[in-house]
Amino acid sequence: MPKQFDIVVIGGGPGGYVAAIRAAQIGLATACVEQAAYADPKGEVRLGGTCLNVGCIPSKALLQSSELYDQAGHAFVMHGIGFESLRLDVRTMMQRKENIVAKLTAGIRALFRKNGVTLLTGHGRFAGRSDDRWQIEVGGHTVEATHVILATGSSARSLPGVDIDNTLVCDNVGALAFEAVPKRLGVIGAGVIGLELGSVWKRLGSEVTILEALPDFLGAADADIAREAWKVFTKRQGLEIVLGVRSIAVERGAATVTVRYEVDDQAFALEVDRLIVSVGRVPNSGGFDAEPLGLALDERGFIAVDEHCHTNLENVWAVGDVVRGPMLAHKGMEEGVMVAERIAGQASHVNYDAIPWVIYTQPEIAWVGRTEAALKKDGIEFRAGKIPFSANGRALGQGDTTGFVKVLAETGSDRVLGVHILGTNASELIAEAVVAMEFGAAAEDLARICHAHPTLSEAVHEAALAVDKRSLHF
Amino acid sequence: MPKQFDIVVIGGGPGGYVAAIRAAQIGLATACVEQAAYADPKGEVRLGGTCLNVGCIPSKALLQSSELYDQAGHAFVMHGIGFESLRLDVRTMMQRKENIVAKLTAGIRALFRKNGVTLLTGHGRFAGRSDDRWQIEVGGHTVEATHVILATGSSARSLPGVDIDNTLVCDNVGALAFEAVPKRLGVIGAGVIGLELGSVWKRLGSEVTILEALPDFLGAADADIAREAWKVFTKRQGLEIVLGVRSIAVERGAATVTVRYEVDDQAFALEVDRLIVSVGRVPNSGGFDAEPLGLALDERGFIAVDEHCHTNLENVWAVGDVVRGPMLAHKGMEEGVMVAERIAGQASHVNYDAIPWVIYTQPEIAWVGRTEAALKKDGIEFRAGKIPFSANGRALGQGDTTGFVKVLAETGSDRVLGVHILGTNASELIAEAVVAMEFGAAAEDLARICHAHPTLSEAVHEAALAVDKRSLHF
Repeated sequence: MPKQFDIVVIGGGPGGYVAAIRAAQIGLATACVEQAAYADPKGEVRLGGTCLNVGCIPSKALLQSSELYDQAGHAFVMHGIGFESLRLDVRTMMQRKENIVAKLTAGIRALFRKNGVTLLTGHGRFAGRSDDRWQIEVGGHTVEATHVILATGSSARSLPGVDIDNTLVCDNVGALAFEAVPKRLGVIGAGVIGLELGSVWKRLGSEVTILEALPDFLGAADADIAREAWKVFTKRQGLEIVLGVRSIAVERGAATVTVRYEVDDQAFALEVDRLIVSVGRVPNSGGFDAEPLGLALDERGFIAVDEHCHTNLENVWAVGDVVRGPMLAHKGMEEGVMVAERIAGQASHVNYDAIPWVIYTQPEIAWVGRTEAALKKDGIEFRAGKIPFSANGRALGQGDTTGFVKVLAETGSDRVLGVHILGTNASELIAEAVVAMEFGAAAEDLARICHAHPTLSEAVHEAALAVDKRSLHF
Repeated sequence: MPKQFDIVVIGGGPGGYVAAIRAAQIGLATACVEQAAYADPKGEVRLGGTCLNVGCIPSKALLQSSELYDQAGHAFVMHGIGFESLRLDVRTMMQRKENIVAKLTAGIRALFRKNGVTLLTGHGRFAGRSDDRWQIEVGGHTVEATHVILATGSSARSLPGVDIDNTLVCDNVGALAFEAVPKRLGVIGAGVIGLELGSVWKRLGSEVTILEALPDFLGAADADIAREAWKVFTKRQGLEIVLGVRSIAVERGAATVTVRYEVDDQAFALEVDRLIVSVGRVPNSGGFDAEPLGLALDERGFIAVDEHCHTNLENVWAVGDVVRGPMLAHKGMEEGVMVAERIAGQASHVNYDAIPWVIYTQPEIAWVGRTEAALKKDGIEFRAGKIPFSANGRALGQGDTTGFVKVLAETGSDRVLGVHILGTNASELIAEAVVAMEFGAAAEDLARICHAHPTLSEAVHEAALAVDKRSLHF
């Protein structure tokens, strides 16, 4: 008889491994299926998915290294710190990144052991259904599960006619493993990944040109933030970003790549030594033989789910990048917890209105809730409070006063509807805004809460005060 | 006739200048009295008090510079960043600090102009009372006010028999203005100031010995935090800290200082090139001729006030370091806002249970609410959730996994009673804990709020989960 589980999770990324751990904690017999080996030297399956292996975690490691290198080259002088012959050993930087990834993926294996999650290595697919149980085949063996959670993630979107070789032309995987700093780097796509990786290599010395098809820069962010970020990235940091790019064609030479493109019907050619293609990601909503069972997809190709991540198939759930909503690891994790708990009969839910977004450029960009444009579109009246970090003592002390905090609150109720931050440490500052929004805070609540001095979080405080035009330090 | 104000604030530090700005915003005719010139090259009065001129702000500037120098010397190698001949120009570092202070003090002058606060320069003192008005004399002129707010701050406590010359033997003022890195630095007092300044000079190359009279290290902090911080500061960073020090005597030589002291009745002598005395601060509760009026002090010499910072004299208020409660700038600011608003007839108050504490060492220490020891003393049953930063992806990415987050929640109600953090960026991470506590959050609330990945704030999330023994990543 096949081995039986209460739950089989297909996919060991953030949505999947968290669902599996939470389910096992509750006492459900849980297995998690994973096939990806990524860069493991022994070819062993690595848990953690794109995020941990070839996404958030390795990119943050490189962002940190490159930020320090950049600070040494540009900021140290104002502190009176001098040195000669600054240099970078890319191998050491990459080895550090790899060590971090290896440690964290091994950590998830350990968490599986600790919580009693069974790891099934191999490709998982639906093999049938009988007696209210799903048969799942993994690497030639079949197991049975009452519930299946699909957490199959997403893949880099390809650009028609452009092959990824991860040597000259790279997706996120290759872009995280350059062996040297390219003299000229091209990036197609000015989204989160393009900006983060473009920033890494720019700081390390590359001439970076980013080509973006859309006419607007950072369309998902608040327009104020996007405008200021544009100025910082292009004027101050020297990233070359071209918007409204059409008809991209890539020609591969012996050691270089030429990108031909049009802007406003004018033709351009860009020769680079490396090219990163980061034009978004597509859900991995196929490949596990759910089509014959009638698993429904939505019009954009995601697995269709209700607000609790249940699909149209009985006891089949889906979480993370493969379903609607932002492709963010923490959104997938929250969905994983919710589904595990709902299977156990709890009433868990995810508040999709309070999921923070972060872009790990320097300055960082983070927000939660709605933008000015979204509020205007919906006819919601609001007041805005905006405070620049130049009025913040900690920012001055740290030597970086770029950016601002903006709080948007509904007129009348004063309820906080959005908080938008461009600045050092925005990724951490956004946490109090999320907590405030989860509690339905008014801007006045945030304004009346004591913030430690001197901290960057005082800018959030002052922005909340500014909603009522009574900022104290600006 | 003397010039008349609704409010005269005596003292232009954080408590005073914020009270003045808020009062003026509300429409009250407000003056603020300040006498201190600190290091102003033109001898002009400088607003901002101890905090801005010779406290939090300049120390944070030096902490940042010294942290970068330390990172270059110790952390860069793991990132693959190399260089030769690392050196420090103390003058440039100090000039940067001075520029930041000058900018911020000038900023407060500008805020006074913007909000319509009258600045009165000189020493302020009570000169009498008539027609329900207080007469205040400032620099030979007399003004009248319906309300007086005393925001006279605090001064470094002196050590009997030890003269401060701010050359060999320094208080906070001199310690922020060394012209070179002392080879051997002695610090008397292992409180916030001693630890922060000791850290600055240790990172820059001094051999640092800190002598502390108390038998316990960081007695105000949670014992867990204090224990781990002790390990990090002494074992890893090489600060020499001696506890239980008695009978301190200081002998000044030509270019060195010898400190004689006893521990457990054994005599020791410490020779250093510079000595910092940081044995706490005392309230400036005299010197403005309030004694003849009968202004009451409490048994510790602070101006006695009720929960709304009103003194025993009609329409005389006091805020900040000169009254009970922690000597923290942000506590004084909140009191300043409260008093200004209460004078205007509003119902403002300060929640003294939700004031964050921060120590800007590296790792930083921050907490809000109560310690385990305080809860045990009061017989309150609680559950603790504790997560080390070694289980946090962002901490790994940043290259510093020191420390942990601990959440204490009441058994039964699950209400968060304290959050204690030792780690990089603790000063910013504490903000969400303060917001949560202000909303009376349960640990489960924090556990169910989405935290951006990868961020250090996920450690707060996990610690909240750990209260219920269901951390996902540890």
